[in-house]
Amino acid sequence: MTKINLNEKFKLFNEFWTPKIVGELNEQYVKLAKTKGEFVWHKHDKEDEFFLVVKGSLTIKLKDGDIQLNEGEFFIVPRGIEHKPFSEQEAHVLVFEPKSTQHTGDVKSELTVEKLDWI
Amino acid sequence: MTKINLNEKFKLFNEFWTPKIVGELNEQYVKLAKTKGEFVWHKHDKEDEFFLVVKGSLTIKLKDGDIQLNEGEFFIVPRGIEHKPFSEQEAHVLVFEPKSTQHTGDVKSELTVEKLDWI
Repeated sequence: MTKINLNEKFKLFNEFWTPKIVGELNEQYVKLAKTKGEFVWHKHDKEDEFFLVVKGSLTIKLKDGDIQLNEGEFFIVPRGIEHKPFSEQEAHVLVFEPKSTQHTGDVKSELTVEKLDWI
Repeated sequence: MTKINLNEKFKLFNEFWTPKIVGELNEQYVKLAKTKGEFVWHKHDKEDEFFLVVKGSLTIKLKDGDIQLNEGEFFIVPRGIEHKPFSEQEAHVLVFEPKSTQHTGDVKSELTVEKLDWI
């Protein structure tokens, strides 16, 4: 039962594309991610994913277009929709998704981290 | 399938303590609330509630102390815990909670709104 300061938490890690868990509620995790460069195309068959940009810009590439998110903007990727996050410059992102969600979804890549850490 | 800009959405309403729904994922809603003054003491027996301050300050009074949230800080009120949000000045808050959650929980008050609107 303690409050979380997003900026303080973002100072605790530097890896890109390796979300850290900062909260848990209703079988969902609140995660923070630093993004830079390209992630992998993937989808989640049973889970919707929420992305809120806290700093910088994040593009979520979809098969039929790109969603460009700036600070203070969010997008929900519906289950089953292929997507590929991309940031030209470093961005900080808050993610909500079920505890079961693997960040690379149905794809195994060199970016896949099986077990994410709490910070 | 469209992005949501928090500041643009906050411009669309002025009521305090009447959250608006701006997104849905995994049987949860993303809501925006403007807060000023005191809400009512209440709890949710089966639902955890996430509060992220986007602008201003929000105090979440608990029976054993207060949680003071400033911009960029969040707190998760666990199910079953009595709480009373309070803002001396207007604040803007992002809330994440199950679709089933009533904002005044187990209490009916003049602030209770049975059906929240999408904006």
